[in-house]
Amino acid sequence: MLVLGKRVAILGSTGSVGQSALDVIAHLGEPFRAAALSANRSADKLLEQAKRFKPSAVALSDESAHDGCADALAQLGAKVYVGPGGLVEMVRRDDIDIVLAAIVGAAGLPAVIAAVQAGKTLALANKEALVVAGSLVIPEARRAGVEILPVDSEHSAIFQAMKCGRRSDVRRVILTASGGPFRTWSKERIDNATLADALKHPTWQMGSKITIDSATMFNKGLELIEACWLFDLEPEQVEIVVHPESIVHSMVEFVDGSVVAQLSPPDMRTPIQYALTYPERADGRARRLDLTKAFALNFEPPDFERFPSLAIAYEVARMKGTSGAVLNAANEVAVNAFTSGNIAFGSIVKIVERVVREHRLQLIASLDDLLAADRLARVAAAALA
Amino acid sequence: MLVLGKRVAILGSTGSVGQSALDVIAHLGEPFRAAALSANRSADKLLEQAKRFKPSAVALSDESAHDGCADALAQLGAKVYVGPGGLVEMVRRDDIDIVLAAIVGAAGLPAVIAAVQAGKTLALANKEALVVAGSLVIPEARRAGVEILPVDSEHSAIFQAMKCGRRSDVRRVILTASGGPFRTWSKERIDNATLADALKHPTWQMGSKITIDSATMFNKGLELIEACWLFDLEPEQVEIVVHPESIVHSMVEFVDGSVVAQLSPPDMRTPIQYALTYPERADGRARRLDLTKAFALNFEPPDFERFPSLAIAYEVARMKGTSGAVLNAANEVAVNAFTSGNIAFGSIVKIVERVVREHRLQLIASLDDLLAADRLARVAAAALA
Repeated sequence: MLVLGKRVAILGSTGSVGQSALDVIAHLGEPFRAAALSANRSADKLLEQAKRFKPSAVALSDESAHDGCADALAQLGAKVYVGPGGLVEMVRRDDIDIVLAAIVGAAGLPAVIAAVQAGKTLALANKEALVVAGSLVIPEARRAGVEILPVDSEHSAIFQAMKCGRRSDVRRVILTASGGPFRTWSKERIDNATLADALKHPTWQMGSKITIDSATMFNKGLELIEACWLFDLEPEQVEIVVHPESIVHSMVEFVDGSVVAQLSPPDMRTPIQYALTYPERADGRARRLDLTKAFALNFEPPDFERFPSLAIAYEVARMKGTSGAVLNAANEVAVNAFTSGNIAFGSIVKIVERVVREHRLQLIASLDDLLAADRLARVAAAALA
Repeated sequence: MLVLGKRVAILGSTGSVGQSALDVIAHLGEPFRAAALSANRSADKLLEQAKRFKPSAVALSDESAHDGCADALAQLGAKVYVGPGGLVEMVRRDDIDIVLAAIVGAAGLPAVIAAVQAGKTLALANKEALVVAGSLVIPEARRAGVEILPVDSEHSAIFQAMKCGRRSDVRRVILTASGGPFRTWSKERIDNATLADALKHPTWQMGSKITIDSATMFNKGLELIEACWLFDLEPEQVEIVVHPESIVHSMVEFVDGSVVAQLSPPDMRTPIQYALTYPERADGRARRLDLTKAFALNFEPPDFERFPSLAIAYEVARMKGTSGAVLNAANEVAVNAFTSGNIAFGSIVKIVERVVREHRLQLIASLDDLLAADRLARVAAAALA
C-alpha cells in the first residue's frame, strides 16, 4: 500500500518517542529505514539499537559518554558523530530524507534548525524547538520549502483535521488535554503533590519531563504555543478543553460550525507513523478504537485557577519574542528542581511565572538572543529553586 | 469568503430539509440563489416560498393540487411545471447549477436520475434514490462526471472525514445512530409503541417518515445502504454505533488506526450548507459546539435483537439488485399503515422482513425492473398490513 519510502534520522532515538519511532520503522519495514540514530548519553542503548537497525550514522551528543564506548561504536560500521556539533553535522547527510526530532527540551533546537536549513522534511516531536524559536524555525522552513509534520498527538490531529477545509475556513482549534493526574485535585493538594504522584499519568506512557509537564499542564501550554507557530494561529483561536480519556487528540472548528476531530487510543506510534508515511498511510500496530463495548468521551473546560500554567502560556503566546524561550527554560529548571526533590510541586509554576514576568522581553530576536534569554532564564529560575 | 456562487434547484422545498435549505440560501445571500422550487402538493407553502425567493421556475408534482392555484402560480412570473414529468423537465434547466434532492421516498428517483443525466451537481438528501437505484445512479453519475454531495448529516460527515486520507487508506466507516426514541426500551415495549411515542425523536427535528424510520432504525439501515453506494464500500466495512447525543455525525477509520470524526450540534442546516458551498465553507447560522460547559459523548454497540431492521439492511446491502427497492417500498407502505393506525409498531419490521425475504431477487436490474420491484413490494406489503 505504501508507495513512498524514506530514510529516517531519529534524533533522540533512545528516548520514549525515539523508541516508538524505531518500533514503527521495524513494523513498516522496507522501504523505510532508520538511516541515522542519535542519543544524548545513553551509549549502551544506542549501541543496541544500532546493532539491530544498522544505521549509516550514529551520533552521541555528550562527549564524555562517548569515551567509554568509542571502540564499540567504531565497530558498527556506521559513521560516528560526537558532541552537539556532530549531531548538527549528521542531520545534513545526503542519505537522510526525513528528520524525526525527538530530543526533549531546548537542547534539540540546533539540530532542528540544521535539518530545516538542509531542506530535510521535519517530523517534529520536539515542541520546545517551536516554543523557543518558532519565530526563526517557521520562516526558515517556509524559505527552504520544508514541510513540518507534527508528531505530538494533538498537533498531528490538528494537521489531519485541517485537511477537511481551506485554511481560511478554520475558525478555531480545540486542543484537548487529558488534565493529567491532578485533574480532580484541589489547589492545595496539587501544590503539595509528590514526584510519584506527578509521574502517574492517567492515559499516556511518556518520558518523565513531559509527564510532569502534564501534571502542571505546562505541557498543554507549550502545545498551545507550538500550535500557534505550526498553524499560524492567534492564541485566541486556540481553545483548550480537558478530555480525560485522551482519545480525541484535538479538533478543528470551521467557520460553518463543523468540527473535525481525530481519535485513536493513546499510543504515540499512531502520530509517529502518520508523520513518517505522510501523505500516505500504512497499517498501524497500535490498538484500534474498540466499538464492541460502550464507552464515553468526556469534555470539560480547563480550570485556570488550579492550573495557572495555562494563563501564563496564553500570555507568552501573545507576547512572542524571547518569552517562549524564557518560559521553556524556567520550566526545565523548575521541573528538574522538583524531580531532584529541591522544591514543592506548586513551586514549579510560581518560579516559571516569576521568571517570565520579570524577564526583559525582546520582540525581535536572533538565535543568539533566544539562546541568551534561555541562559538568563535558567540562572533566574535556579536562583529561585 | 465565498468565491463560488450557485443557482440551486430545491426539489421538495416545502419539506423539512427543503425549508432548512431555503433558510441556508437566505443566510448565504448573493451569490447563492434559489433558482427553482418544487413541492408535491403543498401549493400554498410553495407559493409563499416563491414570493419570497423569486425562483425562475416552480414545480408542483401533484396535478390535482395544481388545479386550485394555477392562477396564483401563473402570476409569480416563474415558469410553472406540473406533474412528475414537469419536475424532471425542470431539473434540466440551464439556469440550475446544483440540484438539492430533498423529496422523501422513492418518488424523488426520476428527478434525481434526470439531474445526473443533465450533468447537474447533486446535493442528495433523498437517500431512497440510492437505496432503490444506486446501481443505476452511481454509474450514471460517474459517466456524466457529476459530483454527488451527500446532505444526510451522517454521509456529509463521512464525506468530510474522507478528505483526511487517500480512499485506499480507508479501513472502515463508522455510521453513528442516535438510537431513536426506543433506544433503551424493551423489545415488547417497542413492539407496542404508539405513533406519539415513535414521533418523539430525542435529538433531531425531522419529517414524520424519517422520524419513524429512526424509531425502527430502518433509517440507519437505509443510510448503511446509501453509504455503500456513495463511498463504494462493502457492508462489512460499515459499522453502526449508537451515539445518543447525535453530535458526532459519523467517522472514518483509516488503515493506521486514525479515526476522523465530524461533529456539530444536530442541525440539518450544517450539512445542507456544506453541500451547497462545497468545496468552500461559509459562516454558519446553526448552533456551535459549546465548550464552556462539561459534556459527554456516549457510544454503544447497536442491539440487533431489539432492532432487527439492522440485520435486514445489512443483508440487503449485500444482496444488491432489486432488494433495496423492495426494502424501501415495503417500509414506506408499512410506515404508512402504522401512521394510519392500521398496524402495530412492531409489525413494520415484520412486514418489511417478510416482503424482502419472499421477493424474487433480480441481480441486474434496469430502472423499469426496479420500479416494477417497487410496485410489487408495495402490493405485497399492503396485503400484509
